[in-house]
Amino acid sequence: MKYYLILTLALALSFAAHSKAEDTPDQWRTLDLDKTILLELETGPVIIELNPQFAPKHVEQISKLVTAGEYDGQSFYRVIDNFVAQGGMNVETTTKLPLLKLESDHQLTASDHFSMVSNKDMFVENTAFLNGFAIGFETKSRMSWLLHCPGIVGLSRQNEPDTGSSDFYITIGQAPRYLDRIMTVFGRVVFGMEHVQKLNRTESIEGDTLDRSIHSKIIKMQMMSDVPKAKRILIEVERTDTEQFEKKLIARMTREHPFFYIKPPQVLDVCQVPVNSRLVTSH
Amino acid sequence: MKYYLILTLALALSFAAHSKAEDTPDQWRTLDLDKTILLELETGPVIIELNPQFAPKHVEQISKLVTAGEYDGQSFYRVIDNFVAQGGMNVETTTKLPLLKLESDHQLTASDHFSMVSNKDMFVENTAFLNGFAIGFETKSRMSWLLHCPGIVGLSRQNEPDTGSSDFYITIGQAPRYLDRIMTVFGRVVFGMEHVQKLNRTESIEGDTLDRSIHSKIIKMQMMSDVPKAKRILIEVERTDTEQFEKKLIARMTREHPFFYIKPPQVLDVCQVPVNSRLVTSH
Repeated sequence: MKYYLILTLALALSFAAHSKAEDTPDQWRTLDLDKTILLELETGPVIIELNPQFAPKHVEQISKLVTAGEYDGQSFYRVIDNFVAQGGMNVETTTKLPLLKLESDHQLTASDHFSMVSNKDMFVENTAFLNGFAIGFETKSRMSWLLHCPGIVGLSRQNEPDTGSSDFYITIGQAPRYLDRIMTVFGRVVFGMEHVQKLNRTESIEGDTLDRSIHSKIIKMQMMSDVPKAKRILIEVERTDTEQFEKKLIARMTREHPFFYIKPPQVLDVCQVPVNSRLVTSH
Repeated sequence: MKYYLILTLALALSFAAHSKAEDTPDQWRTLDLDKTILLELETGPVIIELNPQFAPKHVEQISKLVTAGEYDGQSFYRVIDNFVAQGGMNVETTTKLPLLKLESDHQLTASDHFSMVSNKDMFVENTAFLNGFAIGFETKSRMSWLLHCPGIVGLSRQNEPDTGSSDFYITIGQAPRYLDRIMTVFGRVVFGMEHVQKLNRTESIEGDTLDRSIHSKIIKMQMMSDVPKAKRILIEVERTDTEQFEKKLIARMTREHPFFYIKPPQVLDVCQVPVNSRLVTSH
């Protein structure tokens, strides 16, 4: 009885989270292991999918640093609840690195199979999904860029635009969309976001006091292709260029489930649409 | 040198988080201890401010249950990353409780000193802050309701609207605004949100499997006024009806800091504006 009610409640509210479509094989894609990072934290593993289409130079430099083991043993030194978890490496290394030019805009071409989400976003003319990433784009120019939704990975910088090299942040709260286009997004967390959320916050509820004693360690960062086969975590991510995914977008907007006894406004916040992933259990 | 650069980076990105205004005494208000809940989790303490203005019957019933110790030793049995942490009590108690009628709409009056945030929100005509809570309202009717921003506390229910009684959820990710007005929001977390984020997720990355072994315990829930004085956690929260707060809203929109070498769109997502709180250290 207890379990039954819990399940009922769970199912009811869960429908609000994500409606499930039938599972067909081509709904999923595997990740390119050369473009995937395994970030090991004391709270658990995190998998990051890189985006060389929008940020090729960033992906190149970060991948090199990862391969060289430069992040191993470093830390997340700035973690603000509902904002970002920022980590990186020791300054001796950082100062020797080439600074990266901001990479943001990408002109959409006919081969970019995006799924349209909304033309009512607050920050940009159109929102969509392209290869699993939330993007914004302009109708006329077809210029697009990656959006600061929860779980994206971007390059930290100082005040000037082209001043980042190695340190990065993962967004852990309500999308800080005001950073779109003025920070380089080069990846997204596709697994283990809860392990990022479990990092110690380094700041008090008010202010910027940094307490080095509670910094969370980066145990290891590796390209997944460099991880010994037995230790790899293989996942598949939901494709966002399928009819199934477009149906899911519509389902999230129309909310046919009886839980929605009054239908919400027919709009979608692109950052509130989960792009699912799943462990590959047989390989 | 290391510390210096980290600080610089921190300050640079931190400006993106919240610009600080001068600290004047009337910027802050203390919480009514009879309308404040101390929720003790194994991950740390959480403080919830109740909202009797919008949800009087909910506040009444939940407060009674808290005072009776009904939540003590219960659990968060459904925690989905980037969505909700849902907790509650044993069904033997739940089934005996009166069901609560949904409480959402409140007609704004002249005595409601709200701070306007935006008339460009996706989900509602206007957004604003009223007594620390994010609200939406209609221009003509002046009808208002509490919004599902991160960290709000709402009452779980089944498919029918008036079917909740005791179990509740805390939003832990991108605002699920499609739940506005069809779920009752009766409080918000004003302290310890990171402790909610540290709860074990009860579901796999894909699906609704509930694993009871990893349910997180509610150690104790008490009205703060019932907590022995020595054990109280006293905090002040930022007032949202001050000139200071309105200036902060404008500052978050205009972004004068040089970090914003290109200014973002002049809009504000009400759910991305932090309402600060701070520990009262002398009393």
